[in-house]
Amino acid sequence: MSAQIISAEESSNLTAIVILSMILTPIVGILFERFIQTKEQTSLENVRVAEGLSGKVLMIGFGRFGQVSSQLLLARGIDVSIIDNDIDMIQNAERFGFKIYYGDGSRLDILHASGADTAEAIVVCVDHKETTNKIVELVQHEFPMAKLLVRSYDREHALHLVKQNVDYMIRETFESAMLFGGAILEELGVDQSNIEEISQEIRELDKNVLELKLQQMMSMLVSACNIQDRVRLHL
Amino acid sequence: MSAQIISAEESSNLTAIVILSMILTPIVGILFERFIQTKEQTSLENVRVAEGLSGKVLMIGFGRFGQVSSQLLLARGIDVSIIDNDIDMIQNAERFGFKIYYGDGSRLDILHASGADTAEAIVVCVDHKETTNKIVELVQHEFPMAKLLVRSYDREHALHLVKQNVDYMIRETFESAMLFGGAILEELGVDQSNIEEISQEIRELDKNVLELKLQQMMSMLVSACNIQDRVRLHL
Repeated sequence: MSAQIISAEESSNLTAIVILSMILTPIVGILFERFIQTKEQTSLENVRVAEGLSGKVLMIGFGRFGQVSSQLLLARGIDVSIIDNDIDMIQNAERFGFKIYYGDGSRLDILHASGADTAEAIVVCVDHKETTNKIVELVQHEFPMAKLLVRSYDREHALHLVKQNVDYMIRETFESAMLFGGAILEELGVDQSNIEEISQEIRELDKNVLELKLQQMMSMLVSACNIQDRVRLHL
Repeated sequence: MSAQIISAEESSNLTAIVILSMILTPIVGILFERFIQTKEQTSLENVRVAEGLSGKVLMIGFGRFGQVSSQLLLARGIDVSIIDNDIDMIQNAERFGFKIYYGDGSRLDILHASGADTAEAIVVCVDHKETTNKIVELVQHEFPMAKLLVRSYDREHALHLVKQNVDYMIRETFESAMLFGGAILEELGVDQSNIEEISQEIRELDKNVLELKLQQMMSMLVSACNIQDRVRLHL
């Protein structure tokens, strides 16, 4: 072997390292942007964390849904505490004169800080059903005295919530979709009384389907319990 | 240099290649899964591509919204052609007795194949506002004789659609959110007539805000045109 400052072995390692770093740098960059650096640093101006709130109603979530529902409460002069965990949304709402507090409604400490202990009604207006279900479970366990009203995603979610015994739930797109169907009929020249009749019919049908599905779920649950009982008796 | 089957240079290249392939294989695997192979191979059983349809109404999108709206049309015995580009959804609907055709409603050839030329009304029930806007633009340009009714996402989207002069639009969560607000008031003991009064008030307010925003948009547009005119005159 000839005398070299860098040996052949070292050189091959170096080559590998250099090539690797050239190839990996952009990949790591892409992965970093994709998984870690999800958004630019957000300013926390005008954002107050939920603490010591005591509204008669606690509203969790102030997206498209909560923004509309809250109007009716405010118009009636009801004291509502509103929390959300989207900072951009809180800052936007601030510009329109709303005071929304920052907090994750699926955490027990935040619910306490938001006045869940004393609220007459807790209303869940969150747009992810998994988060909603987590909040429902938590509220029913920790604050059973509060009325619990919940925004639901679709029929399946609605069924889950009915089974959970919430005080009220509504499918978030159901009512607009019903009116939309009526509007199509109107454009086709169907008269208003006929549209109302059809709407009523569809509502009945929908209610029956919901009840039927609920009964099926319940009877499946009962059968499952019976089997469990029998298994237990045989042990 | 001693005689070798593989030279030092070749060896270093080989080392680099081996190490690279060892490191890159799982990364490429991850990237492939993430970006390319988004879902398992779907069976195309029971999926028919839209072709030669001729319903009185063409419905684009059969998610939560279209499923409910279409009920009213079917109850009235109206001939509706429904297309969607979600294969799972089409197969699920099939199980419940619905015939939904596969097709991307934002493509002109698919709209032709779906009977957009002869439909009295084209109703857009898609859940992405960008896709909705694309369909609206296409339909207004290519099928101006059809009534155009559109599901909108939020107030901003609603404004855009009003400006586009669609025949009807409704915000997808607005109506349920209004009823939800009323239900909260009811739980707090407010009587029904008062709730109706408040709801009416909020609807008026909301309508005024929409009109005000539309006027602002229009006057901004007019000013922009005036400036353009003046610029043109001075040229």
